[in-house]
Amino acid sequence: MKAVQVVGYHDKLQLTEIPEPTITGPLDVIVKIGGAGVCRTDIHILEGQWEAKSGVSLPYTIGHENAGWVHAVGDAVTNVAVGDKVILHPLITCGLCTACRDGDDVHCENSEFPGINTNGGYAEYLRTTARSVVKIDDSLEPADVAALADAGLTAYHAAAKVARVTRPGQYCVIMGAGGLGHIGIQVLKAISGVTLVVLDRNPAAVGLAVEIGADIGIVADGTQVQQVLDLTGGKGAHAVLDFVGEGGATAEGVAMLRQAGNYFVVGYGENINVPTIDIISTEINFIGNLVGSYNDLNELMILAAQGKVTLHTTTYRLDEFQQALDDLDAGRVRGRAILIP
Amino acid sequence: MKAVQVVGYHDKLQLTEIPEPTITGPLDVIVKIGGAGVCRTDIHILEGQWEAKSGVSLPYTIGHENAGWVHAVGDAVTNVAVGDKVILHPLITCGLCTACRDGDDVHCENSEFPGINTNGGYAEYLRTTARSVVKIDDSLEPADVAALADAGLTAYHAAAKVARVTRPGQYCVIMGAGGLGHIGIQVLKAISGVTLVVLDRNPAAVGLAVEIGADIGIVADGTQVQQVLDLTGGKGAHAVLDFVGEGGATAEGVAMLRQAGNYFVVGYGENINVPTIDIISTEINFIGNLVGSYNDLNELMILAAQGKVTLHTTTYRLDEFQQALDDLDAGRVRGRAILIP
Amino acid sequence: MKAVQVVGYHDKLQLTEIPEPTITGPLDVIVKIGGAGVCRTDIHILEGQWEAKSGVSLPYTIGHENAGWVHAVGDAVTNVAVGDKVILHPLITCGLCTACRDGDDVHCENSEFPGINTNGGYAEYLRTTARSVVKIDDSLEPADVAALADAGLTAYHAAAKVARVTRPGQYCVIMGAGGLGHIGIQVLKAISGVTLVVLDRNPAAVGLAVEIGADIGIVADGTQVQQVLDLTGGKGAHAVLDFVGEGGATAEGVAMLRQAGNYFVVGYGENINVPTIDIISTEINFIGNLVGSYNDLNELMILAAQGKVTLHTTTYRLDEFQQALDDLDAGRVRGRAILIP
Amino acid sequence: MKAVQVVGYHDKLQLTEIPEPTITGPLDVIVKIGGAGVCRTDIHILEGQWEAKSGVSLPYTIGHENAGWVHAVGDAVTNVAVGDKVILHPLITCGLCTACRDGDDVHCENSEFPGINTNGGYAEYLRTTARSVVKIDDSLEPADVAALADAGLTAYHAAAKVARVTRPGQYCVIMGAGGLGHIGIQVLKAISGVTLVVLDRNPAAVGLAVEIGADIGIVADGTQVQQVLDLTGGKGAHAVLDFVGEGGATAEGVAMLRQAGNYFVVGYGENINVPTIDIISTEINFIGNLVGSYNDLNELMILAAQGKVTLHTTTYRLDEFQQALDDLDAGRVRGRAILIP
Repeated sequence: MKAVQVVGYHDKLQLTEIPEPTITGPLDVIVKIGGAGVCRTDIHILEGQWEAKSGVSLPYTIGHENAGWVHAVGDAVTNVAVGDKVILHPLITCGLCTACRDGDDVHCENSEFPGINTNGGYAEYLRTTARSVVKIDDSLEPADVAALADAGLTAYHAAAKVARVTRPGQYCVIMGAGGLGHIGIQVLKAISGVTLVVLDRNPAAVGLAVEIGADIGIVADGTQVQQVLDLTGGKGAHAVLDFVGEGGATAEGVAMLRQAGNYFVVGYGENINVPTIDIISTEINFIGNLVGSYNDLNELMILAAQGKVTLHTTTYRLDEFQQALDDLDAGRVRGRAILIP
Repeated sequence: MKAVQVVGYHDKLQLTEIPEPTITGPLDVIVKIGGAGVCRTDIHILEGQWEAKSGVSLPYTIGHENAGWVHAVGDAVTNVAVGDKVILHPLITCGLCTACRDGDDVHCENSEFPGINTNGGYAEYLRTTARSVVKIDDSLEPADVAALADAGLTAYHAAAKVARVTRPGQYCVIMGAGGLGHIGIQVLKAISGVTLVVLDRNPAAVGLAVEIGADIGIVADGTQVQQVLDLTGGKGAHAVLDFVGEGGATAEGVAMLRQAGNYFVVGYGENINVPTIDIISTEINFIGNLVGSYNDLNELMILAAQGKVTLHTTTYRLDEFQQALDDLDAGRVRGRAILIP
Repeated sequence: MKAVQVVGYHDKLQLTEIPEPTITGPLDVIVKIGGAGVCRTDIHILEGQWEAKSGVSLPYTIGHENAGWVHAVGDAVTNVAVGDKVILHPLITCGLCTACRDGDDVHCENSEFPGINTNGGYAEYLRTTARSVVKIDDSLEPADVAALADAGLTAYHAAAKVARVTRPGQYCVIMGAGGLGHIGIQVLKAISGVTLVVLDRNPAAVGLAVEIGADIGIVADGTQVQQVLDLTGGKGAHAVLDFVGEGGATAEGVAMLRQAGNYFVVGYGENINVPTIDIISTEINFIGNLVGSYNDLNELMILAAQGKVTLHTTTYRLDEFQQALDDLDAGRVRGRAILIP
Repeated sequence: MKAVQVVGYHDKLQLTEIPEPTITGPLDVIVKIGGAGVCRTDIHILEGQWEAKSGVSLPYTIGHENAGWVHAVGDAVTNVAVGDKVILHPLITCGLCTACRDGDDVHCENSEFPGINTNGGYAEYLRTTARSVVKIDDSLEPADVAALADAGLTAYHAAAKVARVTRPGQYCVIMGAGGLGHIGIQVLKAISGVTLVVLDRNPAAVGLAVEIGADIGIVADGTQVQQVLDLTGGKGAHAVLDFVGEGGATAEGVAMLRQAGNYFVVGYGENINVPTIDIISTEINFIGNLVGSYNDLNELMILAAQGKVTLHTTTYRLDEFQQALDDLDAGRVRGRAILIP
């Protein structure tokens, strides 16, 4: 089959012919890829940023946001059948460690990460296991949802945490109205009664945020902290959901946070650097957020099927992978780029 | 190997020779049985009470409270190794359904129940899977903990729920100081600051309850509701943990419950039969309780290893199974009866 | 001032002239009534159903769903000022008992209930305290929201509990699409991602339910249990929110409930009458629901100000109180009847 | 009456004669002081560190950890009566703001702090309100528990949070086995099944920690991070409860924390300074902790009455205040110093 592989760091990806994956264990699932998201992480992989961390042997097939159709299943697979439309949770998890047994499979002690440390989805077929395939509604197409598998799932996971610790009418500031921010806005509008205040430096992004559901949009022009304080009677927001995490965002976010508020860290780059005296005297919390669980992805797919969460995509044929990466790198992609074999 | 099997309902169990189980799948685990609890349910099985519900084909090996040593493992088993001491969760679960993926494996949609609907532990060896084996501390012996696998796990599960919805110093009434009650008392003393009031008709059982940690023991002589109300300033207990569930216990339990209190149903027999007007005007809840999860069993084994939860046992050789059942039926067993191959 | 009073049970209410209430304590608040809901409970009071329970001395002013403007405040009042638009929490609470100190003021040990056991709102002015007045948004009018003070608050409180124990995409059955049901539907759509299935015997009520946000409407014609099971793959709903509570509703509701599901009791009349064995083997819970807290009412008013929860009302002048009661009794009121002084 | 007052910053406290406080409002409570804790904060006040923050006018009476007997009550006080033994919550709260209405009175928007910004307890009598007085058991003496009112309450509050987010058998590292640490250890042993690992630089403090309930004591000699990792299979602790917060403690604490673990900030001095990438990739949380609520103090007093939480105290007569402060400053006080009028 055709696959796009990493053959060397600081090298270009290569389209090549490799054997189709086959069922080797009873929980294996072979998925015919219907769409594979092209992600900035893919560019970072080529730059060698993941070389040490992943320890993957080259060549291997890249692509970690995948959806498609079940092509073959092992003997013990009970949750999907051949022909089912599925999206793939980014991790292949063991199901046996304490974290997996708690439903917290993201912290599995024995996980693999297709596209990062084993063969991914820039290909015609991919091998995963029954534990990673989420059946999607007939109304959804793999290419339309593939990009929700990783970035979207992270935004969902964090937004669902916000929903659990806030009450209707409380204020939640979302910092950053880019890809994750847009998913976060849609999710919070769908599952929570929180009042959403969205900040971004880009006025167009703020405008779009308001269109898709933000209650209040604020252009981050230097006055944003004061604007949030003014909106909230000087008290600040009950939650800050930070999709930025760099360029001074965290200090601003903390300045917008109310006593006993929760700060959700999603974006990264700089440090959380706050005096302990300020943390205790205001009794605020900082909540880390990684990608969501298998059940989180299932819930996100229900929201997608209900039309409550949508994503703009631009599709490319698999053999146009270089164009897709170039467009992404140059900022020419509207929404997310998706490869279709 | 030797195994004790059900050969017909209303018939006696038979000790017979059957082939040892073997590894047939990659997650299979063969356990050399070190102890198998003899439970009243085993008597009910012989009486045919489970015939329709289990649908098991005869003959099959009985015994659903099992512990021992790992004897062989399938290729994909990563959580235990040959030689490990283990206790067996009562269910074999799929790991793929939504409940399993939430850590709520007890509500697995595809479970098997060894000793009930497939071969159990009145035998030298038993086949289960990696998802059911909980490693126990070196300081514990399989025969000493086997009876915690089902009844003990149920008590732990309910007690842990009580701990999560009460605050230190609040009142919890435990109804019934028998086998489950004793585990419940020990667990709540170990993990919670709740004030424990234990009721039983049997003064000796009440005495023992106080010895193992109950703060207050009350002999249920007809004045128990009033005594609980007196203790609590007329307001009733914040939680009632009912291990009885018959003979009028539930009406009494509700009469002891405070506004906004929680009633934990574990024992069964009669109906919860309460006017909806009383449920809403007092805003009380009724909480159902089944056996605990795999992780619950793991936690219970940690408490056992710390000496915080102990169980009296009387051991029998496997070929003395009939004596064990007869003694149980006649009320001659101190603590729990355990078969040792 | 004018007030409508109970002068005898099985007697008609009387419009009379009584002195205006005055500030007698530092936390007192005098409210100029802008709207007082006419509720079926008012009819029950006249029938003597509350005589023993309330112990109120006659004559007294009826009316327990009140909103208006702050007319005067005691020295220690800091949360409202003269002229503020307010809705009144149904209870006057002490602020000192353990329940009040936990934010659970509905279970206050020392509460009064204006309109039930002290003077209520069928009048020009009413005395309450600072602990009962919730400021409402400028965009809301007292007469439009008064009826949310009690019935609406109960529906909000129960719906908010449903939201906290369900996950997006799970099924919630709402039984009864009357006054409380409509509030419940609007609230759950506003604060939760649950899939709402609404049942009612009245096809018009079902139609309206779907209009205001129910995902699926089912006319309760005897096939409703099967329809819910069919919708949910035979498993039943994750939550049942029962606004009926009589005529066999609870048995049907339990039959629609999934393993590990939650049954929310709001409507009343019959008993919850379920075998304990069924409660434990399915591990279901029954959750009682009374009226909501002060902060619940505050949240409901935010949703009302956002236009997410609305109520149809028919207004009457205070001296038309008899017409309002007659219309209510005869089923001639569209939405809720409101008296306006 | 006699009172010890701040008459100038960088000046000595002065014992002086001032009028007894009197009831001025219906919720006022006059407490005859039975014991007032002498705290390091008192020394900081004299050094002027609180001058700007408190804005208090001099002279005023110092002392913020108080207990005694109710001497007089206002008309509206229902929760205590003259003669009751009480401990005083450190804050006087309004009972009307949203935080107070949620049971989160520590974040009251209108609070006073006796001993800090209004007259405190280095005196014969103190005026507070009904909202601040917690009745204590007959078996407790005011002088024995006074020092639990602030420092002890902070430790209780943080420990109770740890208990709510951990499961029996999980690891909790307590950093710092001083005054707060000792309360934290006793509380966690009383209300939780967590495995307690206590670290301190002082071997004697570690020894005492183990005596009062720590499961494992570790002398912080530079190998403590590695020791905790070794204890936990290289994974780290599920919770870190940091009573130090300076001298590099936070970096060490984070290094001991497991994936998805919770870091409880109580001690202060340095910054939490952690890369956002580390927070998200491990999905850890930082939880701020201030003093506990009124109900927290009530719970702590129940544990004290049960003998589960005790405190070493050294008592001084009120006119020996200077000696008490000098002893505290010189490290000569065993346990806590208490002034007794």
